[in-house]
Amino acid sequence: MPRRFLNVALLLAAWCFGPGAQAADALPSWNDGAAKARIVAFVQAVTEPGGKDFVPPAERIAVFDNDGTLWAEQPAYFQALFIRDRIQALAPKHPEWKTQEPYASLLKGDLKAVLAGGEKALLQLAMATHAGMSTDEFRQIVSDWIATARHPKTGRLYTEMTYAPMRELLDYLRANAFKTWIVSGGGIEFMRPWAERVYGVPPEQVIGSSIQTKYELRNGQPVLVRLPALNFIDDKAGKPVGIQQHIGRRPIAAFGNSDGDFEMLAWTTGGPGARLGVIVHHDDAEREYAYDRKSHIGKLDRGLNEAGARGWTVVSMKGDWKTVFAPPR
Amino acid sequence: MPRRFLNVALLLAAWCFGPGAQAADALPSWNDGAAKARIVAFVQAVTEPGGKDFVPPAERIAVFDNDGTLWAEQPAYFQALFIRDRIQALAPKHPEWKTQEPYASLLKGDLKAVLAGGEKALLQLAMATHAGMSTDEFRQIVSDWIATARHPKTGRLYTEMTYAPMRELLDYLRANAFKTWIVSGGGIEFMRPWAERVYGVPPEQVIGSSIQTKYELRNGQPVLVRLPALNFIDDKAGKPVGIQQHIGRRPIAAFGNSDGDFEMLAWTTGGPGARLGVIVHHDDAEREYAYDRKSHIGKLDRGLNEAGARGWTVVSMKGDWKTVFAPPR
Repeated sequence: MPRRFLNVALLLAAWCFGPGAQAADALPSWNDGAAKARIVAFVQAVTEPGGKDFVPPAERIAVFDNDGTLWAEQPAYFQALFIRDRIQALAPKHPEWKTQEPYASLLKGDLKAVLAGGEKALLQLAMATHAGMSTDEFRQIVSDWIATARHPKTGRLYTEMTYAPMRELLDYLRANAFKTWIVSGGGIEFMRPWAERVYGVPPEQVIGSSIQTKYELRNGQPVLVRLPALNFIDDKAGKPVGIQQHIGRRPIAAFGNSDGDFEMLAWTTGGPGARLGVIVHHDDAEREYAYDRKSHIGKLDRGLNEAGARGWTVVSMKGDWKTVFAPPR
Repeated sequence: MPRRFLNVALLLAAWCFGPGAQAADALPSWNDGAAKARIVAFVQAVTEPGGKDFVPPAERIAVFDNDGTLWAEQPAYFQALFIRDRIQALAPKHPEWKTQEPYASLLKGDLKAVLAGGEKALLQLAMATHAGMSTDEFRQIVSDWIATARHPKTGRLYTEMTYAPMRELLDYLRANAFKTWIVSGGGIEFMRPWAERVYGVPPEQVIGSSIQTKYELRNGQPVLVRLPALNFIDDKAGKPVGIQQHIGRRPIAAFGNSDGDFEMLAWTTGGPGARLGVIVHHDDAEREYAYDRKSHIGKLDRGLNEAGARGWTVVSMKGDWKTVFAPPR
């Protein structure tokens, strides 16, 4: 082949198959802008063989918060809505809940009274709905709920309130040999039953808060029983701890949306070499929700203050995303 | 192509590329016998598309104990020898250890006196050598030790006391789309620095015992500091708990060598469908060590009693293995 043709062919091949060209097309739900460009430039840099920022595939670890980063978290964490639904479903078997707090207030729909009970009340509700059954039984409970329960405002399935641009990002990173992990304050066993189908993230790449489990025999068969006792809170400074415990390597890319992700972002971007820290900013009251510094859920204050100095990219849901919610999967 | 030729071609292809044919050649360190045949038959069964025992790749989870299953564990767990070496290395900085127990006895080589101090003494030695530094610093300490320390009897590097037949088995399973995990009573951060190089098992697929870690800033840089407090004991009934915490799925194959692996084997083989439980029996005093029911280390008693009834395969190191130790890697 003449040299000129060869060059043209190589250029074409690079354009068709190189990480750069693929990248642009792999994120169709993202508007062209600084955020998208930064993400694509990072992926190109760490995947370019022989490049100064090249990272071997085994070390291409990307971590994603879930609530508010991969799916919505308003008007309450979806797991809190799961708890509410479960308390209602279990109420007929617990007549005592009609007069016992915090159950009574929850059943009357008086969320304010529930919250007045503080952390203790919430923990009590969580344990009443998350403990006492085997891990297999809990998986089935979550699977049934996620298949049918609907969001109070949109009427959609919760899995349809995952963000299309973020699901594209997960796919794009995996296409570039990243391993994608969820690192959430939510319950690890609440996410695992559907994270693989919805996000393409298998159970072993989900990190979250957990309660204790105990191995025992039931009718001679081994089961793992879920106990009403906290094991691990995967939030704030707990996130780097959970990452180390499960992954054993420092990630090179982290995606969050609230100050609960601050330490995860700091830990990820504090390492040597090319690093990517991204904050999803909820500034789209029309298509989703708008909240940040003063929100009880997903409070984002310090992250906004320090993102610039730390080189973190702030994604505007309003400006950077062509579409917000993902089609059913 | 005439039909007859097509059939012959398909047969040839199946013979050359099918899991069965590959399998036999993938385990050259194994003598042909019942144990090898059982392992190969299991892998063929779960990988045969359309077969009644077919398991999708995502669910092909195999778990391996480490001490006594993937590498030797005599005359003491290698991590105990690491602790001894570290105490000796740190002694110049701790003149008080000359008179303080259990350090004094250990430094004098009086293991019996150390053991007389019971679990408390051992825990004290473990914490003195495993806590107080960052995770990065500990990784370096382990890496330096494993690169140079030598076994007291054979004079080999410890990584050269890994078992060739088991390393082949890891490779063979991965070639059949299994994910291979280590599930060890040993320290998770003691294994991670070398498990990928030696076993092909990346850090995120290592499960083990752990101490607590804490996220903090040192000179403005985030670090994870290792604390002198237990976090999790990954042994006996703790193994299924650790498996659920890290993997979130029940394995379909488990490999162990002692009663510390009993619950992991019971949990793995207690699930529906084709399952494989394997016990490595140390019965080769000449090439390795011979011990079981009465050993303090790697005691195997209940496992031997119940293996037959539970359908677990007992591998004789003497009879089933052509070679024992693996070449340097």
